[in-house]
Amino acid sequence: MDLNSDLGEGFGIWKLGDDSALLGVITSANVACGFHAGDPSTMRKVCEEAAKNGVKIGAQVSYRDLAGFGRRFIDVDPTELADEVLYQIGALDACARAAGAEVAYVKPHGALYNATVHHEKQAKAVVDGVKAFKDLPVLGLPGSQLLEKAALAGLRPVQEAFADRGYTPEGTLVPRSQPNALLTDTAQIVERAHRLLQGELVAVDGTVLKTSAESLCVHGDTPGAVAHARAVKEALGAVEPFA
Amino acid sequence: MDLNSDLGEGFGIWKLGDDSALLGVITSANVACGFHAGDPSTMRKVCEEAAKNGVKIGAQVSYRDLAGFGRRFIDVDPTELADEVLYQIGALDACARAAGAEVAYVKPHGALYNATVHHEKQAKAVVDGVKAFKDLPVLGLPGSQLLEKAALAGLRPVQEAFADRGYTPEGTLVPRSQPNALLTDTAQIVERAHRLLQGELVAVDGTVLKTSAESLCVHGDTPGAVAHARAVKEALGAVEPFA
Amino acid sequence: MDLNSDLGEGFGIWKLGDDSALLGVITSANVACGFHAGDPSTMRKVCEEAAKNGVKIGAQVSYRDLAGFGRRFIDVDPTELADEVLYQIGALDACARAAGAEVAYVKPHGALYNATVHHEKQAKAVVDGVKAFKDLPVLGLPGSQLLEKAALAGLRPVQEAFADRGYTPEGTLVPRSQPNALLTDTAQIVERAHRLLQGELVAVDGTVLKTSAESLCVHGDTPGAVAHARAVKEALGAVEPFA
Amino acid sequence: MDLNSDLGEGFGIWKLGDDSALLGVITSANVACGFHAGDPSTMRKVCEEAAKNGVKIGAQVSYRDLAGFGRRFIDVDPTELADEVLYQIGALDACARAAGAEVAYVKPHGALYNATVHHEKQAKAVVDGVKAFKDLPVLGLPGSQLLEKAALAGLRPVQEAFADRGYTPEGTLVPRSQPNALLTDTAQIVERAHRLLQGELVAVDGTVLKTSAESLCVHGDTPGAVAHARAVKEALGAVEPFA
Repeated sequence: MDLNSDLGEGFGIWKLGDDSALLGVITSANVACGFHAGDPSTMRKVCEEAAKNGVKIGAQVSYRDLAGFGRRFIDVDPTELADEVLYQIGALDACARAAGAEVAYVKPHGALYNATVHHEKQAKAVVDGVKAFKDLPVLGLPGSQLLEKAALAGLRPVQEAFADRGYTPEGTLVPRSQPNALLTDTAQIVERAHRLLQGELVAVDGTVLKTSAESLCVHGDTPGAVAHARAVKEALGAVEPFA
Repeated sequence: MDLNSDLGEGFGIWKLGDDSALLGVITSANVACGFHAGDPSTMRKVCEEAAKNGVKIGAQVSYRDLAGFGRRFIDVDPTELADEVLYQIGALDACARAAGAEVAYVKPHGALYNATVHHEKQAKAVVDGVKAFKDLPVLGLPGSQLLEKAALAGLRPVQEAFADRGYTPEGTLVPRSQPNALLTDTAQIVERAHRLLQGELVAVDGTVLKTSAESLCVHGDTPGAVAHARAVKEALGAVEPFA
Repeated sequence: MDLNSDLGEGFGIWKLGDDSALLGVITSANVACGFHAGDPSTMRKVCEEAAKNGVKIGAQVSYRDLAGFGRRFIDVDPTELADEVLYQIGALDACARAAGAEVAYVKPHGALYNATVHHEKQAKAVVDGVKAFKDLPVLGLPGSQLLEKAALAGLRPVQEAFADRGYTPEGTLVPRSQPNALLTDTAQIVERAHRLLQGELVAVDGTVLKTSAESLCVHGDTPGAVAHARAVKEALGAVEPFA
Repeated sequence: MDLNSDLGEGFGIWKLGDDSALLGVITSANVACGFHAGDPSTMRKVCEEAAKNGVKIGAQVSYRDLAGFGRRFIDVDPTELADEVLYQIGALDACARAAGAEVAYVKPHGALYNATVHHEKQAKAVVDGVKAFKDLPVLGLPGSQLLEKAALAGLRPVQEAFADRGYTPEGTLVPRSQPNALLTDTAQIVERAHRLLQGELVAVDGTVLKTSAESLCVHGDTPGAVAHARAVKEALGAVEPFA
């Protein structure tokens, strides 16, 4: 099982999360590319540290929205969105290469992640942007338009599950505006990891869902994030980047 | 002799210059990378058209300053500046590669161009940013710190002259705030081109300066820009990208 | 009948439309406030010229979206949207007051204008932002949530019609992506103005709609914009700001 | 003695300093206006809380530089700088008025604060921007061009001292890049406050400088900031906004 987390989400003077600590735990780093967070110096530092730790670097592409941290749907024209995705991957790849690594996969951030679950045109646009760069794996929600379009385009879709998010009986995430959106109890999070190893995911109402997630996402910007990530890693026994 | 011009300097709805017409005349396109101008879609379109026309693509890197079009000196920390240069080159290179080309050189824009004539730390920072990407040629003013630091770092310095800018007897550009900063008469601009072929540059006071410029810059955003570019090309007889 | 137009829609070096010419024709200027266009110097110059011409100054508030010129729906949180509207009106009012005038009304721009036709929460948010500043009139589409919420909040709703946009039989604007979205023929535009004086609006299929629009919008960024504005003014006979 | 501090210096998701705690201690809040930090919602919340606490609201105007937190000198054209200052004050004033207060003074932030100590044109530009809004007091370093230009323009100059910054024997601040730039020991900071009540300021080499500072600045973004602010307040005995 791969363990991924969002990194490099500060901007200039503003910091978010403990990147260094997480890089000692995770196997894949979703690095912000400057559109919702991530200035060039932060990007480069995260890439250097990821490379040193043998952590895979992924482009965490986003809507252009620093003020909203990429958490607001923007009705961008698909052609422009594809070009923005290409731009972001290229910028991060330069940082990764300067550190002796390279961008190894792509995962949309925030509202773009959510939109591309259902929004066919934007899902296709993200995939187009990725393909314009290189045939990279795409991380996303099982059943999402994003992974479907990726597969259709010949990209490797990588299904992920969330260690600390509540699931509906339908397998989608409980919106952050509702109760049970976030798991904050370490025991619960560890249980989630254990069940995932058995291909199971327990929804908020107790429904047991089948999953073949290859990557597990832990958040880095919540209280106790690093402790949770370590607990999840221990629960998983062994973690390694997806192939 | 190479003929270069600044391209892709619109942003979103706003346009500047006639990129398509210029791409039929010049041999090297300095493409804006999003920091002073240039959204991803514009960048990609310019790269595609440049590739089709066999025009070399250069990264026109800049301070982060959309509001000032990169024309205001910013006292950026050299490390951050190097990282910003790397970011911009990477973003443009992704666009260029999507068009079957690649970034072939770097030329700083506006205030960064002017600053790196004398500002050793920023000149070094630009060179560091370029080297972090790849050993690319750097276009600049003869005698500038930029070209000196580039040479020291093992990068190919490419001297350029301006077809339509007034020169002081010392070989620097007459500031835009002074008279004679811009040559607007086609005959004068053509004469400048002819003299350059003989290794000469005539200053505003008549002083004849020696030059070994390999590239000649024509502006794209002035009235009659395209006509001037065509006249210069004809005067030069043959143009080709610098090797 | 009032004649309004969007002004100050350049940003930094980039210009859009002929503000000076339009200010000699219209009676109300919707001035961009920096979120989709409009740097402080442009805002101030437009305010000064509007004041000299006796043209009313309105705040053309927008989503924060320079890259998209405010033409893309953004799913902003209503509280944040209200605060952004307040911020923009305040910034423009400072420019207007420096010119001896003041902000006299508010009109949302682009995608925010379109969204607030139906989006109740964003419509309410715009009204909340206006009221937090002062009880100013709000310009909008007849039947829109925006005007409804404005009226409910005790603000004066001002209905507007468009001189150069196609209308559906339902009285909404034909989307820009469809044919007949824009009227480009002067005769048609003049005819539109004449009919409006009789309280009528002819849809693209010939349906005659009743209207009590008090303000007519002419665009400033299309070819022939100024000529069209003058023709409309002449057709209207007399124009004056809404009371 | 007045006690001022920089507030509202987060942006979107990113936070900086403990505004609420500081508002229970200080008498004047320098509120960021969106150019180096400060989104509209943050601005409004700080204004509301300041109004509730009877804390005076000042506009902490800045260069347009979110990426650099306004800490980098930008060679802005003075006319544009004046317009940017006007814009920022207007935007904040709208937020302040919505909270039943108003902008009561202006203090430049970061690099603009430092630049206007010596840079006559930018100092004049800030003053021009303030005057274009209203004749407000201006906070600055004793002996600065900023306070001199303010006085010449008929604005009330308010001299301030820093509770936690090292001073050179010439009365300027020790640059942040040098040792002794920051006082971090509470005892030292309290001693600074005591001496200020006697009109004295002790430089890093022990030189005793005379001062008639009316306002004392405490920082909000350093570790122990709130504790220091409380200690300073206690040392001063009584604090009240400058008249």
